[in-house]
Amino acid sequence: MKIQRYKHELGVSYTLGATLTYELINCAPESVTRIFVSPSADVGGSEGISRLLERCRELGLPVEEGDKAFHILSPKGNCFVIGEFRKTEKRLSPGMHLVLVNPSDAGNLGTIIRTAAGFGIGNIAIIRPGVDSYDPKVVRASMGAAFHVAVEYFQSIENYRERFPENRLYAFMLSAPVPLTETERQEPCSLVFGNEATGLPDGYKSFCQPVVIRHSGKIDSLSLPMAAGIAMYEFTKDRWRGGI
Amino acid sequence: MKIQRYKHELGVSYTLGATLTYELINCAPESVTRIFVSPSADVGGSEGISRLLERCRELGLPVEEGDKAFHILSPKGNCFVIGEFRKTEKRLSPGMHLVLVNPSDAGNLGTIIRTAAGFGIGNIAIIRPGVDSYDPKVVRASMGAAFHVAVEYFQSIENYRERFPENRLYAFMLSAPVPLTETERQEPCSLVFGNEATGLPDGYKSFCQPVVIRHSGKIDSLSLPMAAGIAMYEFTKDRWRGGI
Repeated sequence: MKIQRYKHELGVSYTLGATLTYELINCAPESVTRIFVSPSADVGGSEGISRLLERCRELGLPVEEGDKAFHILSPKGNCFVIGEFRKTEKRLSPGMHLVLVNPSDAGNLGTIIRTAAGFGIGNIAIIRPGVDSYDPKVVRASMGAAFHVAVEYFQSIENYRERFPENRLYAFMLSAPVPLTETERQEPCSLVFGNEATGLPDGYKSFCQPVVIRHSGKIDSLSLPMAAGIAMYEFTKDRWRGGI
Repeated sequence: MKIQRYKHELGVSYTLGATLTYELINCAPESVTRIFVSPSADVGGSEGISRLLERCRELGLPVEEGDKAFHILSPKGNCFVIGEFRKTEKRLSPGMHLVLVNPSDAGNLGTIIRTAAGFGIGNIAIIRPGVDSYDPKVVRASMGAAFHVAVEYFQSIENYRERFPENRLYAFMLSAPVPLTETERQEPCSLVFGNEATGLPDGYKSFCQPVVIRHSGKIDSLSLPMAAGIAMYEFTKDRWRGGI
């Protein structure tokens, strides 16, 4: 089977690095198609790599040794294990959601997925256009949390609202009159964030409750992952009161 | 004057890009030594660049046109304005501080500085060894907030405590018994965070109040900028209650 640089159109994506590939094997073994090991990998000396290969044997996953996958997928040469896995379409379950409208940065999306998994939010809606959640950069920045969170794409916010009419929508925008600290939280709900550079259109105020995370005038805005992280923390913090 | 790639030993650092250089000129004009403009810059067509050059004329800042600085400092070639500025040693003022013990990632430090400025925390202590806060990568990731925040380096946490004995120290660590949501906040205080990979040594519990930001077992930990951002939000949120 041919190895190609990742493209949105491909049916597979990749985990670059031993730690991330180990997460893939443990969280989503049924999706793994192949594991590539570099001839330069220190199989005997690296505990991580030998443990990973043992796990592949246990699960009966195909392991291929060779340079080629690394030349194509990791030209910088600081990676010795790559996992190849089938992409699957996911559907959101009812409950608390994060809704990202036109997110454009792969690293940001990965960080957000990691934080969402951390706060027990397992469902993220992306309103198109938006960065591809299977991009290897997203998977890497999520540090494997991408295998714990369902990401579903919607053509428009209207499509999303039709599927989840019971969710109360909170739209995070700088021009909102009410701060997060004074916002009454109702569930099920959706925390809605706009694009990194442009935020949410003003029209969202007509069908969402607008919320602002107040900050000083020394910065234009918090970064998107930071704003989303603080909102997720605030909306879920009662869940962790008794311990986990 | 020679142009060199940034090194910690140099007396100057650089802002790469027009927006960041504009922040430099407005926030710290006294520190600016030169502004470089690329011959490929669209001076007439770019509003940002022409506004920046006008501001340089008003302030009497020297502007040099030429390729050389760009070849050395921004080899990727997607940058048309560079600011050169003198580094100054800063000293913390009393009050609420963020204390970073051995932070290692430049992008993370920049993000943390941006968030600190956003929540009105103008003082960050770094316990050595730690990443250089004047590294152009830090300045860029801070999006200019580096010009609003004082960063001071200390040889050890003991040195820091001797200077600020009145500050109550909160040490953020996964093994802390009390969650952030149940922590009583006293001021003046210091929010203390460890290295990205290793966290804080257990010994910090003997002189700090340990605090944990509870999260699910789906992730090992929140990222350092996310944990610091959530802590800063929680410790300062009463300040913004009445608006800003």
